[in-house]
Amino acid sequence: MDKIRRNERMSAMMRMLAGAPNRIFTLSSFCEMFGSAKSTMSEDVDLLRETCRSFDLGEVETVTGAAGGVRYRPLVSREKARETIAELCRELSGSGRVLPGGFLYYSDILSTPDIVNRMGEIIATEYYDRMPDFVLTMETKGIPVAFATANALGVPLVIARHSSKVYEGSAVNINYVSGSGNIEMMSLSRRAVRENQKALIVDDFLRGGGTAKGMVELMREFNVEVTGMAFVMATVAPEKKRVSGEKALMTLTVEDGDPAVASVRPSDWLMKDRDE
Amino acid sequence: MDKIRRNERMSAMMRMLAGAPNRIFTLSSFCEMFGSAKSTMSEDVDLLRETCRSFDLGEVETVTGAAGGVRYRPLVSREKARETIAELCRELSGSGRVLPGGFLYYSDILSTPDIVNRMGEIIATEYYDRMPDFVLTMETKGIPVAFATANALGVPLVIARHSSKVYEGSAVNINYVSGSGNIEMMSLSRRAVRENQKALIVDDFLRGGGTAKGMVELMREFNVEVTGMAFVMATVAPEKKRVSGEKALMTLTVEDGDPAVASVRPSDWLMKDRDE
Repeated sequence: MDKIRRNERMSAMMRMLAGAPNRIFTLSSFCEMFGSAKSTMSEDVDLLRETCRSFDLGEVETVTGAAGGVRYRPLVSREKARETIAELCRELSGSGRVLPGGFLYYSDILSTPDIVNRMGEIIATEYYDRMPDFVLTMETKGIPVAFATANALGVPLVIARHSSKVYEGSAVNINYVSGSGNIEMMSLSRRAVRENQKALIVDDFLRGGGTAKGMVELMREFNVEVTGMAFVMATVAPEKKRVSGEKALMTLTVEDGDPAVASVRPSDWLMKDRDE
Repeated sequence: MDKIRRNERMSAMMRMLAGAPNRIFTLSSFCEMFGSAKSTMSEDVDLLRETCRSFDLGEVETVTGAAGGVRYRPLVSREKARETIAELCRELSGSGRVLPGGFLYYSDILSTPDIVNRMGEIIATEYYDRMPDFVLTMETKGIPVAFATANALGVPLVIARHSSKVYEGSAVNINYVSGSGNIEMMSLSRRAVRENQKALIVDDFLRGGGTAKGMVELMREFNVEVTGMAFVMATVAPEKKRVSGEKALMTLTVEDGDPAVASVRPSDWLMKDRDE
């Protein structure tokens, strides 16, 4: 094989690192792949880090120690996050998407990969430091964005179900009070998580917080700590939710009228700069 | 700003292209971003194409014409696909994962991003040429892999539900015969798809094909053509399914006994080379 050039090494590395966010690749694995010396690879990594920084494309980080190496995190700057979310808000506001009963139609946004991935990266950016072991969601609508968040964090996704299924094995079931005031069931396979892990809850919608509180209680049954909670959309009312400390990307108000009008804006925390 | 070097341009481009598979980026957008001449960018693209090819990292393609530009497809070679799936089969075979009733536990595989993304890319590789407009799945377990496939194809994901929900707006409901022989309902929002589109069905599991057949009928209601069907796992029995022309990544046989033993192998089509 011809000698591999720096631009080839760097592009191939970029593809591999970005394809498995937050996973640590050893320098030696790259040295072997490209037939390069460690010092050369270190220079490549330094250049890659600078490139990602100057084009606001996330972080390439060197991790030292025995399990050390290089990893990529698709960190999103607060500025870029605001831009992305503001654009979504414009798309969702107005009367065209309000359904009878004052509900907002946004299922399309929740399953368009490009948008979902960006939302997942924005959420992940907020929670890398908490080092969750998995992302938890409740079926169905939040699954894609929860998956995208899990992908950006490099951890598994765990899906709670409305009922226990034979193909999930023995399960823990709990009852919770849903948004509509009904008693519902939430079920999770015993095999899905282990004691003393840390969970990040991600879901599409937060109104009263009944389902979210159910997920917190479910995690308590497994002796799992909930290290954070993120939602795509939260309603303004009721102001007091059954959970606290959550971050929603967007805040929704539906104003009565004929036609009813939805007003969607980026949530307050997004409007501040990150404290770092 | 200092002059941007080729290795920086190529790595940044790689990140952006791979972050939005199958989307066409115009050359001029890159020229503007890097302040480079078109001829220089063309050379960069050629080098990137060669790099992806030599490291089996997918395809960088130049699309000519008025809407032309550059796109990236995470194509997986048949050889690499076989390797990935064979490794999964080893992981799933044996007695540890067989549940009472002869069911196989593999929910973890279906929601580990790294594995799910690779499965999605393998499926997408088979269907780029059919140019589906969206990926259709039925809630719940297949959603992550259907999403990963949609991502690799650069098209939206559409999720059919067991019942129609107020927040989805008016819906089309159909009845179908499920694997357990019950009559069940499948529902899809009217807004989710448009007439004359092409659908690729992706789901986690195929036994008799009742749910898959339901999805085909649902698409008929929308005047949508089903252009392909892919599953993570198909059972050997019954040999005759209610659908045909499907591709499953893995084939499952559960052998009775105490303990029951699962035998999972890569499906036949994967063992052949691609005809191209």
